[in-house]
Amino acid sequence: MSVFAAIAVPGELREATDARAWLEGMLAAERALARAEALAGVIPAEAAEAIAETCAAGRFDLEGLAEQGRAAGNPVEPLVRQLRKAVGGDAARYVHWGATSQDVMDTAAMLVARRALELILADVERVAAACARHAREQRDTTMAARTLLQQAVPTTFGLKAAGWLVAVVESRAWLRRVRSERLAAQLGGAAGTLAALGEHGPDVARLFATELELAEPPLPWHANRVRIAELGSALATTAGVLAKIGVDVALLAQVEVAEVAPPEGGGSSTMPQKRNPVGSALAVACARLVAADAAVLTGSLVQEHERALGGWHAEWDALSGALALTGGAAAAIADLLEGLEVDPERMRANLDEAVLSERAVFELGIERGELAGRPLRDALSERLADAELEAALDPAGYLGSAAQLVDRALAFAEGEPGE
Amino acid sequence: MSVFAAIAVPGELREATDARAWLEGMLAAERALARAEALAGVIPAEAAEAIAETCAAGRFDLEGLAEQGRAAGNPVEPLVRQLRKAVGGDAARYVHWGATSQDVMDTAAMLVARRALELILADVERVAAACARHAREQRDTTMAARTLLQQAVPTTFGLKAAGWLVAVVESRAWLRRVRSERLAAQLGGAAGTLAALGEHGPDVARLFATELELAEPPLPWHANRVRIAELGSALATTAGVLAKIGVDVALLAQVEVAEVAPPEGGGSSTMPQKRNPVGSALAVACARLVAADAAVLTGSLVQEHERALGGWHAEWDALSGALALTGGAAAAIADLLEGLEVDPERMRANLDEAVLSERAVFELGIERGELAGRPLRDALSERLADAELEAALDPAGYLGSAAQLVDRALAFAEGEPGE
Amino acid sequence: MSVFAAIAVPGELREATDARAWLEGMLAAERALARAEALAGVIPAEAAEAIAETCAAGRFDLEGLAEQGRAAGNPVEPLVRQLRKAVGGDAARYVHWGATSQDVMDTAAMLVARRALELILADVERVAAACARHAREQRDTTMAARTLLQQAVPTTFGLKAAGWLVAVVESRAWLRRVRSERLAAQLGGAAGTLAALGEHGPDVARLFATELELAEPPLPWHANRVRIAELGSALATTAGVLAKIGVDVALLAQVEVAEVAPPEGGGSSTMPQKRNPVGSALAVACARLVAADAAVLTGSLVQEHERALGGWHAEWDALSGALALTGGAAAAIADLLEGLEVDPERMRANLDEAVLSERAVFELGIERGELAGRPLRDALSERLADAELEAALDPAGYLGSAAQLVDRALAFAEGEPGE
Amino acid sequence: MSVFAAIAVPGELREATDARAWLEGMLAAERALARAEALAGVIPAEAAEAIAETCAAGRFDLEGLAEQGRAAGNPVEPLVRQLRKAVGGDAARYVHWGATSQDVMDTAAMLVARRALELILADVERVAAACARHAREQRDTTMAARTLLQQAVPTTFGLKAAGWLVAVVESRAWLRRVRSERLAAQLGGAAGTLAALGEHGPDVARLFATELELAEPPLPWHANRVRIAELGSALATTAGVLAKIGVDVALLAQVEVAEVAPPEGGGSSTMPQKRNPVGSALAVACARLVAADAAVLTGSLVQEHERALGGWHAEWDALSGALALTGGAAAAIADLLEGLEVDPERMRANLDEAVLSERAVFELGIERGELAGRPLRDALSERLADAELEAALDPAGYLGSAAQLVDRALAFAEGEPGE
Repeated sequence: MSVFAAIAVPGELREATDARAWLEGMLAAERALARAEALAGVIPAEAAEAIAETCAAGRFDLEGLAEQGRAAGNPVEPLVRQLRKAVGGDAARYVHWGATSQDVMDTAAMLVARRALELILADVERVAAACARHAREQRDTTMAARTLLQQAVPTTFGLKAAGWLVAVVESRAWLRRVRSERLAAQLGGAAGTLAALGEHGPDVARLFATELELAEPPLPWHANRVRIAELGSALATTAGVLAKIGVDVALLAQVEVAEVAPPEGGGSSTMPQKRNPVGSALAVACARLVAADAAVLTGSLVQEHERALGGWHAEWDALSGALALTGGAAAAIADLLEGLEVDPERMRANLDEAVLSERAVFELGIERGELAGRPLRDALSERLADAELEAALDPAGYLGSAAQLVDRALAFAEGEPGE
Repeated sequence: MSVFAAIAVPGELREATDARAWLEGMLAAERALARAEALAGVIPAEAAEAIAETCAAGRFDLEGLAEQGRAAGNPVEPLVRQLRKAVGGDAARYVHWGATSQDVMDTAAMLVARRALELILADVERVAAACARHAREQRDTTMAARTLLQQAVPTTFGLKAAGWLVAVVESRAWLRRVRSERLAAQLGGAAGTLAALGEHGPDVARLFATELELAEPPLPWHANRVRIAELGSALATTAGVLAKIGVDVALLAQVEVAEVAPPEGGGSSTMPQKRNPVGSALAVACARLVAADAAVLTGSLVQEHERALGGWHAEWDALSGALALTGGAAAAIADLLEGLEVDPERMRANLDEAVLSERAVFELGIERGELAGRPLRDALSERLADAELEAALDPAGYLGSAAQLVDRALAFAEGEPGE
Repeated sequence: MSVFAAIAVPGELREATDARAWLEGMLAAERALARAEALAGVIPAEAAEAIAETCAAGRFDLEGLAEQGRAAGNPVEPLVRQLRKAVGGDAARYVHWGATSQDVMDTAAMLVARRALELILADVERVAAACARHAREQRDTTMAARTLLQQAVPTTFGLKAAGWLVAVVESRAWLRRVRSERLAAQLGGAAGTLAALGEHGPDVARLFATELELAEPPLPWHANRVRIAELGSALATTAGVLAKIGVDVALLAQVEVAEVAPPEGGGSSTMPQKRNPVGSALAVACARLVAADAAVLTGSLVQEHERALGGWHAEWDALSGALALTGGAAAAIADLLEGLEVDPERMRANLDEAVLSERAVFELGIERGELAGRPLRDALSERLADAELEAALDPAGYLGSAAQLVDRALAFAEGEPGE
Repeated sequence: MSVFAAIAVPGELREATDARAWLEGMLAAERALARAEALAGVIPAEAAEAIAETCAAGRFDLEGLAEQGRAAGNPVEPLVRQLRKAVGGDAARYVHWGATSQDVMDTAAMLVARRALELILADVERVAAACARHAREQRDTTMAARTLLQQAVPTTFGLKAAGWLVAVVESRAWLRRVRSERLAAQLGGAAGTLAALGEHGPDVARLFATELELAEPPLPWHANRVRIAELGSALATTAGVLAKIGVDVALLAQVEVAEVAPPEGGGSSTMPQKRNPVGSALAVACARLVAADAAVLTGSLVQEHERALGGWHAEWDALSGALALTGGAAAAIADLLEGLEVDPERMRANLDEAVLSERAVFELGIERGELAGRPLRDALSERLADAELEAALDPAGYLGSAAQLVDRALAFAEGEPGE
């Protein structure tokens, strides 16, 4: 267990991505293989039955597999030996029939990814719902937009939340597309020809995918890692989108800004007054780690010949990490946004009048030079009567299409195809 | 000009991604903005005409824009000043009306990306065609499959090329999808509310996108960089796929393997005999650089508030680099594969009989232990008559579904939706 | 020219790292090689003289070298051809005698790095001086320390600047060490044996290094890229340290915090009131790009055999970029800190009384639970008389060893060995 | 446990870098803090004794700390609560006196790093010794040097091993320097002023470092992460150097090259004949993951104010991973090189005569053009008598300074300062 993931990743997701989950994925692959081969008439039905029964994760010694896996460079080789021994009898020789280690690892990776994506998407869903709620509730709450960390012009908290929402929905759509279209079974045999299955290769491959409810790829993808790279990219993008929300919240929660407050919790070991935006910190850290994992996966596209010298092996932990930590970010931001306290009055109070200087240029035709170096109010008071002056300095009067854009974002989120 | 890109990136693409191309993109954005605003009735038609006429890149001083851009942190601010001066008269004040620097930079980025993608895709197309040709022509050419750089079982060169083809087609499909769906105009004004355009904001935004033939986004995306991250990911994936082909070719072209030969060229400055797989080296280098650029783009998802403190600025060169160098990889691999000489006899001759040991296990039921530590031929000769022995040791007899898979890959490539 | 580097990198450094600078480095290498070989008696002195005279960068066609370099995979091969032609006569055959392209490129890289490091270090020096000045001048200026972006306990602006100073000094020391110890001449011939130089190899290698005032390495380092990786790491670390300063300044310059103000400039194309921390943005963007370049250089450690298939080629632009952009960050932060306006009164005013709650725990022995959920002043007023209360709530009274630590940092910076 | 690390990282190192090791580091920090504070007279000696006794890792519930650490964003805050409870009585309030969570985490990180570096360096030592042995034993074993994967000129296996040796020694020297100079205790209190320790701050900090036998830094380094970035860089460089050896070995071990053979083991789950270079694959995968971890650490230099929003948190697992996997690479390559079988005859046999074409240019003055497109032997036979011809085609006669360079590398390795 690593120290940050232990904190940041929800327990269920941690379990869904750890070595034991991979082991279960491998066993599911071996079981589905045996069944598919029995259906295709490649191995005896009784052998398949015996194998399927034995594939119950609990009996296998993970620590031992790791130890012995060192020599083979992967845990499948010793697992197959354990499995053959456990199955025993005539059926033993049909274990792993016609498959190669990578078939089993890659298929396990897909099963791990599928389960993890389910958990991740549930929390991403919570994030989207919270964004939508804030967008609706604060549709007309005026606040300062900030560029390069400086107040720029007025905006609304609703539009800020709507911006988060659109990004979340876009990355969610990508994750969903990957889940439904890109998680494919892997079966190619020693080097992708399915040679050991004789004429039954394509049949078995199809049945194997069906058995596991994974997509059937056009070719075995042992040396074509586009789907892994795409999964990594979608995860890193999602994590980045979540971290952006985290940073925005933390900036708004600064003592001097105080426009939002994170949920209770976030205490310090020494300073009783602190209400730290811990969820923001967790999401930022997760996103950085996921980006690094995704870079490893992208690098792993360059695999030598029919199985890479290390490029393949590097994927396993990078994929586990990317899944777990994207989920960590999603959980952290879901909690953060669901418990977020918004202070519309402070938002309004923080607005510096200077944020209306753009308006003076566009609506009043004042030259930019005239406004430099002195308060906007002074510059405007030379031109405007008092009532006009107050109107011109009312930030709520310079929100452009903010409200309309919020509605549009909400409609976009509604329209994005769901499950 | 940087020294590697000067070599690796085709001249046309280098021009399509350099600072001048960005400048042209910015001017196209300013022109389209003026036109859209005239159509929407926001600015006078004559002003729009004057602005559009002035937006002819040649007159602008790139070096000067860079120098002055340092103070503003982007080149748009000084460009707008130059443009206003060049337009002159009443129309000058309508230059850049209601827009912010990021609107212009982001839109320019999309235009640069669109043009570059066109060039990249043309070379990716050549790669796909060359892969398909090799797959067809060498459909039944037996060679060694290699895993972890060791001969494994027989395969065909056709299947190897088919594997490349599927990966190329998958990444091409991704690039195309990004091009047609994800390149969107950016118009939000100072902070995304379109405030300076009053009630005309959405209209202008729509007309602006139409003018440029870019997609209209649900919201201004100044702080939602999912589309940039996705573009970067698609480019890095494509470059990785191309580099994988490059590595395979270089490995096959080793003196000791000599199954393929790269096209003529690739001479050394000192060793006359060498025929270096230069295209492989270029593609590998490109892919590493593109992966780094894509990682920068992923990192830039975390933008503060309505415009990032640096995260936005980091995108420009990373995006240019990712586009240029993906194209460099595509051109290198297209040339490499088009001129590749394939030596089927050498492929057959290199096949070590040991690659049939798997067959002995699966078809002849020999125990793996029996085969260890001695030549396969010896082990088999104890069981098989001479004719059977030669048949069992014929690699062409143990190709599984290779030919069928080649056909399937070709059909897949045919079926992938085109332009 | 790339659009961001054009803005962010000072002109002199941009020139010191562009393709022309590399060309000059290659010519310097060829010249030094000829001289060293003449001194060692390997080639005639007159030939060396003729070669040295011809090596004047102006005469060479950079664009043409790039074009022709594509076939060889590097620009040295066509350069040598051009050089031989330009030298003419008997001397022509002694051009590039016994060397390989990589000898010339790697040595050029070292010369480019040396010149760039000189420029970078000059700006890093300015940063260090500005940090030291702020540390001294604001040694006792009380302000809020902030952790996770929340006010924590009091500190001083002097200590903050001292913290920057120590990091700058540490990274500067690393850059200096790399410059003085790790920039080494490369001469190994075709594959590192110096074979074409017969018995004179080591002599020529020594004289070559002497001629260029570069270190002489224990072995040719064509396939040992530790020194390149270390240079990249030192640059990325320096850029990161500078970006950290940039972020701190931008956070302090927020309208709502306003404890510092960046120098004038930083205007927006649309909002007249803005005073953007542009230097911060540039430094952050530079640091992200340098980190990506450094990652490429680290990845390039894995070079195949005696010259890499792409791993070497990827280094050139990554190294140029890392040098240029680290310098960009240094220049931006030097300008930022030199022109920084500090507002001690605002620093004091911003201090929330709550930052003394830790003090209440440690000095007054109040339980953390007692302080939760109500103002610190209320909690303390139950225990303390008025005078004590004000003293307890005076942040200047809870600065611990801040002043002493500032002095220590200044002494550390003084003591760090200089040029 | 993650699936790849379970295989690749030796058990002892895995334990030295997992969450429990961090917990032990935290407890060691708390213990040392109490002792230092007692020595400085800040807390009662009996309290320190009670705290020190309680700090026995076994009693703490790691899973619970993780769960509760989620709210605080780090495991120290709940650990301190558990510790206070376990200590009980008056002493309880002196637990963690004046420190902040980061003091404890950062110090734990240093202790984890120290222990891990010890294990890593032991295996790096084995690698260096094996390189040196091969360099000595094969000092004069002629083989082909290969550039861009093509045979170039002759070299020796001794020189190849010597090249590995120098890179290993350089990265080892870096690791050692980091270990002895850059592992520093962290004690700064809530924000680096040591405020809660009153006038005793610097004393306690010094005693704390002494107690732990860590360096005393010039300032608390909570927001100055240069030492972490440097550690990461040194690890990534070491891992890269090791992976380069792994790749070279795997290339030499290809069936068609067969110049070396990896140790027994490396079996496939399906192909009995295979002798996979598993150590190479593991080292390559480790190096890619370490590079990604190091990039995270470099990115974490940019920390906001006195404690980062996520940048700090991202370091923990990245550091653990970098340490563990660098050790994994070292162990894999140590095993690989120690058991490596070298086949000098095959090396000689593989040498293509064409590798002597450079010699023909330099020693015989033949024009490069004359050699193109026909066997070197044919070209030479026109000029040379038979005996001369054979001599000219003897690769052992064109080794330049190879032997001398081997000696030089061995002397360099000897001279590199040890423990």
